[in-house]
Amino acid sequence: MATTLITGGTVVSATGRGAADVLIDGERIVALLEPGSTVLGANLTETVDRVIDATGKYVIPGGIDAHTHMSMPFGGTTAADTFETGTRAAAWGGTTTIIDFAVQKFGERVQDSLQTWHDMAAGECAIDYSFHQIIGDVNDESLRAMRELPGEGISSFKLFMAYPGVFYSDDAQILRAMQTGADTGLLTMMHAENGPAIDVLVGQLLAQGKTDPYYHGIARAWELEEEATHRAIMLAKLTGAPLYVVHVSAKQAVAQLAAARDRGQNVFGETCPQYLYLSLEDQLGAPGFEGAKWVCSTPLRSKHDHHQDEAWQALRTNDLQMVSTDHCPFCMKGQKDMGIGDFSKIPNGIGSVEHRMDLMYQGVVDGKISLERWVEITATTPARMFGLYGRKGVLAPGADADVVIYDPDGHTSIGVDATHHMNMDHSAWEGYEIDGHVDTVLSRGKVVVDDNTYLGRKGDGRFVRRDPCQYLI
Amino acid sequence: MATTLITGGTVVSATGRGAADVLIDGERIVALLEPGSTVLGANLTETVDRVIDATGKYVIPGGIDAHTHMSMPFGGTTAADTFETGTRAAAWGGTTTIIDFAVQKFGERVQDSLQTWHDMAAGECAIDYSFHQIIGDVNDESLRAMRELPGEGISSFKLFMAYPGVFYSDDAQILRAMQTGADTGLLTMMHAENGPAIDVLVGQLLAQGKTDPYYHGIARAWELEEEATHRAIMLAKLTGAPLYVVHVSAKQAVAQLAAARDRGQNVFGETCPQYLYLSLEDQLGAPGFEGAKWVCSTPLRSKHDHHQDEAWQALRTNDLQMVSTDHCPFCMKGQKDMGIGDFSKIPNGIGSVEHRMDLMYQGVVDGKISLERWVEITATTPARMFGLYGRKGVLAPGADADVVIYDPDGHTSIGVDATHHMNMDHSAWEGYEIDGHVDTVLSRGKVVVDDNTYLGRKGDGRFVRRDPCQYLI
Amino acid sequence: MATTLITGGTVVSATGRGAADVLIDGERIVALLEPGSTVLGANLTETVDRVIDATGKYVIPGGIDAHTHMSMPFGGTTAADTFETGTRAAAWGGTTTIIDFAVQKFGERVQDSLQTWHDMAAGECAIDYSFHQIIGDVNDESLRAMRELPGEGISSFKLFMAYPGVFYSDDAQILRAMQTGADTGLLTMMHAENGPAIDVLVGQLLAQGKTDPYYHGIARAWELEEEATHRAIMLAKLTGAPLYVVHVSAKQAVAQLAAARDRGQNVFGETCPQYLYLSLEDQLGAPGFEGAKWVCSTPLRSKHDHHQDEAWQALRTNDLQMVSTDHCPFCMKGQKDMGIGDFSKIPNGIGSVEHRMDLMYQGVVDGKISLERWVEITATTPARMFGLYGRKGVLAPGADADVVIYDPDGHTSIGVDATHHMNMDHSAWEGYEIDGHVDTVLSRGKVVVDDNTYLGRKGDGRFVRRDPCQYLI
Amino acid sequence: MATTLITGGTVVSATGRGAADVLIDGERIVALLEPGSTVLGANLTETVDRVIDATGKYVIPGGIDAHTHMSMPFGGTTAADTFETGTRAAAWGGTTTIIDFAVQKFGERVQDSLQTWHDMAAGECAIDYSFHQIIGDVNDESLRAMRELPGEGISSFKLFMAYPGVFYSDDAQILRAMQTGADTGLLTMMHAENGPAIDVLVGQLLAQGKTDPYYHGIARAWELEEEATHRAIMLAKLTGAPLYVVHVSAKQAVAQLAAARDRGQNVFGETCPQYLYLSLEDQLGAPGFEGAKWVCSTPLRSKHDHHQDEAWQALRTNDLQMVSTDHCPFCMKGQKDMGIGDFSKIPNGIGSVEHRMDLMYQGVVDGKISLERWVEITATTPARMFGLYGRKGVLAPGADADVVIYDPDGHTSIGVDATHHMNMDHSAWEGYEIDGHVDTVLSRGKVVVDDNTYLGRKGDGRFVRRDPCQYLI
Repeated sequence: MATTLITGGTVVSATGRGAADVLIDGERIVALLEPGSTVLGANLTETVDRVIDATGKYVIPGGIDAHTHMSMPFGGTTAADTFETGTRAAAWGGTTTIIDFAVQKFGERVQDSLQTWHDMAAGECAIDYSFHQIIGDVNDESLRAMRELPGEGISSFKLFMAYPGVFYSDDAQILRAMQTGADTGLLTMMHAENGPAIDVLVGQLLAQGKTDPYYHGIARAWELEEEATHRAIMLAKLTGAPLYVVHVSAKQAVAQLAAARDRGQNVFGETCPQYLYLSLEDQLGAPGFEGAKWVCSTPLRSKHDHHQDEAWQALRTNDLQMVSTDHCPFCMKGQKDMGIGDFSKIPNGIGSVEHRMDLMYQGVVDGKISLERWVEITATTPARMFGLYGRKGVLAPGADADVVIYDPDGHTSIGVDATHHMNMDHSAWEGYEIDGHVDTVLSRGKVVVDDNTYLGRKGDGRFVRRDPCQYLI
Repeated sequence: MATTLITGGTVVSATGRGAADVLIDGERIVALLEPGSTVLGANLTETVDRVIDATGKYVIPGGIDAHTHMSMPFGGTTAADTFETGTRAAAWGGTTTIIDFAVQKFGERVQDSLQTWHDMAAGECAIDYSFHQIIGDVNDESLRAMRELPGEGISSFKLFMAYPGVFYSDDAQILRAMQTGADTGLLTMMHAENGPAIDVLVGQLLAQGKTDPYYHGIARAWELEEEATHRAIMLAKLTGAPLYVVHVSAKQAVAQLAAARDRGQNVFGETCPQYLYLSLEDQLGAPGFEGAKWVCSTPLRSKHDHHQDEAWQALRTNDLQMVSTDHCPFCMKGQKDMGIGDFSKIPNGIGSVEHRMDLMYQGVVDGKISLERWVEITATTPARMFGLYGRKGVLAPGADADVVIYDPDGHTSIGVDATHHMNMDHSAWEGYEIDGHVDTVLSRGKVVVDDNTYLGRKGDGRFVRRDPCQYLI
Repeated sequence: MATTLITGGTVVSATGRGAADVLIDGERIVALLEPGSTVLGANLTETVDRVIDATGKYVIPGGIDAHTHMSMPFGGTTAADTFETGTRAAAWGGTTTIIDFAVQKFGERVQDSLQTWHDMAAGECAIDYSFHQIIGDVNDESLRAMRELPGEGISSFKLFMAYPGVFYSDDAQILRAMQTGADTGLLTMMHAENGPAIDVLVGQLLAQGKTDPYYHGIARAWELEEEATHRAIMLAKLTGAPLYVVHVSAKQAVAQLAAARDRGQNVFGETCPQYLYLSLEDQLGAPGFEGAKWVCSTPLRSKHDHHQDEAWQALRTNDLQMVSTDHCPFCMKGQKDMGIGDFSKIPNGIGSVEHRMDLMYQGVVDGKISLERWVEITATTPARMFGLYGRKGVLAPGADADVVIYDPDGHTSIGVDATHHMNMDHSAWEGYEIDGHVDTVLSRGKVVVDDNTYLGRKGDGRFVRRDPCQYLI
Repeated sequence: MATTLITGGTVVSATGRGAADVLIDGERIVALLEPGSTVLGANLTETVDRVIDATGKYVIPGGIDAHTHMSMPFGGTTAADTFETGTRAAAWGGTTTIIDFAVQKFGERVQDSLQTWHDMAAGECAIDYSFHQIIGDVNDESLRAMRELPGEGISSFKLFMAYPGVFYSDDAQILRAMQTGADTGLLTMMHAENGPAIDVLVGQLLAQGKTDPYYHGIARAWELEEEATHRAIMLAKLTGAPLYVVHVSAKQAVAQLAAARDRGQNVFGETCPQYLYLSLEDQLGAPGFEGAKWVCSTPLRSKHDHHQDEAWQALRTNDLQMVSTDHCPFCMKGQKDMGIGDFSKIPNGIGSVEHRMDLMYQGVVDGKISLERWVEITATTPARMFGLYGRKGVLAPGADADVVIYDPDGHTSIGVDATHHMNMDHSAWEGYEIDGHVDTVLSRGKVVVDDNTYLGRKGDGRFVRRDPCQYLI
């Protein structure tokens, strides 16, 4: 196996930073070393197969995007990125692991759905991947199937309080699934929006001729995210289930999470770059049908109510624990345009898997979060939350050599068609400029991106079995 | 310089754990290595000067006790532990750094007080040490002197809202000192109790003949801790000063800290082992004068109101960030007994510097906190909070080789006279049994405790200059 | 028309008390007079038809019990009190108006259900009565029917978040009904418990052989009341609907109401005597099947968690606005005993309509509430809340002469079979002793109870049309 | 004694409204009567001495302004209104009782200060008056003197957390005074601003050349009002003292009051018209020295932070209980102008005693509060809060005939020099237009204002002894 030494860089962890060399043997990190130390004898730079000079750069664990939807069927179409294109784009952006979702549809066996997703991803991925299991039909059989998930290396499942008739679970189903989850050591993930109420509002808006993308954001009012978040928290409390709320966007939902955690509950929340940077007014309310690019659920929130500022603050205070993308891209032509004249027919989703590490680094530059917090919310906590820590999310002996070399003096212009690698005919991030750059990406020891060149190939990535949540208090 | 390899252990950090060998060269860690890896060539166990077998044990960063008072003058006497005896006891207990307090008395120059403490500690300590600066007389001159503290390697100062006529600062003084602190990059530490109100209650209780130690806890009501905590938070908010509240004991004070942090303020709180394990009723209310052993300020709180449970919970949720001891021991004979017949004359203080790591580890055994959290609250966060991270608080290349090898299968009976090493004629922890044991302690690479033997000597410890707080959000 | 003068008493209102004579002409109060004033000429005591001496007693507006269920069909049986027996018992206890519930069942026309209740009550009642409208089947037709309710003198309707398959409305239905209510000037009343979740727990408890009445209280956990209360509040916020939550028992639900009101929402809550005096442990957990007497929903709460104390406190602070009974009695023999071996089959309900004024007066004696607050929560606020003020709930010129003369030096032993007048084979209040007594009750000028004798007859009471809520902020 | 009948009006109380005639005999109300009732025999309109036709108008209890400072010495000058001019202006505006403050200065006997104020007011007032006692020097003697206050008809005293060196009490003094107050049945009133901290900021601003009136509002930051409010609440909690916080302006202080009350404490707050209508930016920040007109403490708050909206909301939710004026006028010429070039020398105070009823009525017109709430916050609650209820604050038999006939179809242009009657060379309310008008004012049965004419004379008003607070929960 080949050996690699990353020298001269500043290794950044969730708790601090320091000069250190990283020695890789094959797929794993075997040592962190004091630069220049001679105690180990021979000069390593001469004995290793490859030396990567990281002088003046940050050396960080590869990003973990814990919320993606490659090839996701939604609203009569399918998310535009496949596991091949989506994971390649992720690698370009310094993300070396994704956790996607296997979708049990109504009436389907959980095991079958998981196999379907295994089939879809196997041999296609540029980076390592795992699955959460969506339970779209909670019943006796699916509850039994949930008990097999840990054995399959799946330690988390997701329910929906939104989308009645599709993925929706009612409170009786949620209660039962949470009980099973608590009992089985599975983390409950929740899409927390009150779907039945939203559907009423959608129908009323459309009936009033309010069909533009903007009204997607009006129908999905923050009150209905806050409500569902609180409801999920209380059902979790009753069952003892740890809870992870996905794509939190409303500041009031954040407040519910913070309150629950202050009371000692194992309640966690992720947000996404779109909720930190984009708004109801500026993006969803763009002229004409343009806003469709940013139709996602939960929706972008009003900047007048400072949801974005509060989300940044919650990231600082650890009232939100991590940032995923909810990557689920659809093209404007042939997909998003299904909703011209009826916002409810616009496929929900934004593509960001390639830009998460950059967008969050910009938060460091802008003074929103510290450098260490950047690593924590993009890699270390995702790993701990979803049972990957030790192998992923940290640079330590024994860990997979998923490493990103990030240049704080580099620059990235994101969003321009020519410079992103997601399978989309547009970008939700057109025009964003980042004061940093992903220079080199190693996935299990292999350099897959370097010097703005993709060096990997599909099939590099392997399915990763996950342990139970390592972040419980 | 001698080299040491700690092999076979489980290295525990604030974020996770894993098998790793720790290689030490002289005073510093030079590498963390995958056990058994041969990529570095020669078998290290044969080339290093010393191999320490940590099989089956935890290898953790040495403890940092950020709140001690060696030889502290208080109430007409002096804390019983000197820098020599106190730091030696700390080493016995797995603590390799203390931060003590230089005390500027009323009318004294700050610089002189700092020099006095340097003189007291130099050449006496078993482990590394630093100082916070107490500002007991806020005025134009002392405010100017504060600006020199960073240059002296001092990055934190402490004020008292208690003890009128002794250390007390009024709100005008606090405001000015916080402004200077914020401006200078100093962390404001606060003893948050409403001293003027307490003194009224003390006088009234004594006048009513309520002179037993128990009434110390009654006079120092939780309302007056909560009030002062809130006041300190608001003054900090107004000035932009980061705030660290010492020895938090009341759950209502914890709630104030949590609320402030949820609002995005840089507000932190430490608690101490006594507030997690001991109570107003059981200890302070012990028969006769026995309760004097546990007279400290803030006082032990009522178990009926569950302050102890809430403090544990706050440690889990990070509403309290760390655990120090407020080590300030006084002997019963000749010191505590000054307060027979008048609780207000009992010197305030408990001795715990030796037991902090053990007592907190017992929290792991009891399911109160995780193993990682133990390391975080006893070493990593103290280091970050007070500007030591990188050198202290973490096992990483380049860090000082302050290492503790902790045996989860060992046992420690603490508190019995023969088995503690603090200069006290009693123990506040008599009878506590710990399901773990400090096996080996290295201070900057030197084994100072091993196999229940003290191998160090006074003067091993050096003054450590500190950087600004590394924990700000 | 006959004239009556009530002399010598202390008239108590919601805001204060004072000596005043009350002059009644026929059915209405025509004057409040300074005792002994001669400015009006002739000595009134000689010219009126009847003088009632209230010396040393309180003269208060007749009680309004805004939550009763006479002849209510529930769980395969019917509440034991008819409008005849129940209103007579109410009169005995100083209540001169009830507001009962017309029940629209699934598939039924709202108008038909209202007529059914009119038919049931007409000519039967001892005191005045009105109806709230239960909407048990929210759909286009029932929403249209709601718009006719104000014209029928009905200004409030009730929904259930509990009892799936019976009265239950899902969130889409609640949203639509609240919108219509807000638009029509109707007050939304809510039974706030998460029924689907409760039903899961009920099934699980029964499957575990936990069939005793006590488990009724376990299944209906406070978390599920708090959750539903919060959900109702958020849906009300979204729709602008004023909200009145019935039979609040959990302190956490109270906290949600208080928080909403502090935010400026028109959100109100009633509690009932059982939630102030009785507990899960002492009553619901009584040996054998005895606890069935106290099976009601929401259930009695744990005294260890101090729900009762908190409910009293909320009455003091106006975080709860009023006290009704939720009177819905079932006999042990032939009704409650349907649930032997299966607590879910016990008809839900307690009979208290006769005792509300006494039980709440005992709160005055016990120092829980003030005398004025007693009048406010039992008469004045109920009148304002439900659009009766001016005619009911106050002693003022022009108001209906519904008057109670209450003797603070009297005594009432309640609960003993011989001394209550509800149609029950037991009493939920057996053994309660009240330091006061309902001496005389006037209903629209007619003395219906005096000197422990019932002087009225069925048909005395008339249907009262109600205005919109007069308590909105 | 002369008799008066007010006919045809709508009597409005704190709980409701209705048609009623008010019969007055001499100084007191002797009856409330149903209009047109003949049961009392003769047609009263023919037998009374005077009939006042209130058709189409509101008949309400005379306003009670519980916070005025006539002839108050402050900052080297004296408030411009004397008891004569100030109470006459009050009468003009529908206020029939004021409660002013007797000021115990440092070193003065409490009894002497009370006598001084008696001397100042006796024979001068147009309406009834009472005093709160300011304790400006808490010591053993003044604490003893406090115990005599109830015997003097004084049931409330006031402390200052602001103005060090003038009225300021430290926390030890506050604690002792609250203890005495709680023990003696006195209500503690508090000026809640952190004076020592404010003084530091004042000095710093002036040193920076920030001398305009605007900086008065910057120095007195909301954080320092919130802080002091919380501190007062906690000291009150500790002592069991009921607490009334004067002139609350910061929404965060309101939140502290609401939280305390939700916890069951007897904590109350008043606000003033200026905090509802005026702002830091628009008034205090007016060009040049103009802002001096609105220099008062607590200061006007920022409209960007919506303090005004929140104060209105708190009035609706009863998180603030009443509205006083803190009337303390100073002329621009010769008084306010002392602070040109140094805002700290501007005498603190605004004159509003004449406009309170009108300004708050405009809140009814604007939909901010209900008609009943208007009466409650301006008359009924002030009466209950300060022990006047029964005689003042309500229209009921036996009450003093303090009555205002208010015309909702009238109009009042306030603030123009010619149309106000306060002794000021300007108006703080210049240009405010009110959609209502004080038509007639009766003070103890005497018509003192009618048809825009003042009919009273100095000396009409008498000192009123007060009972303990009647508003405790």
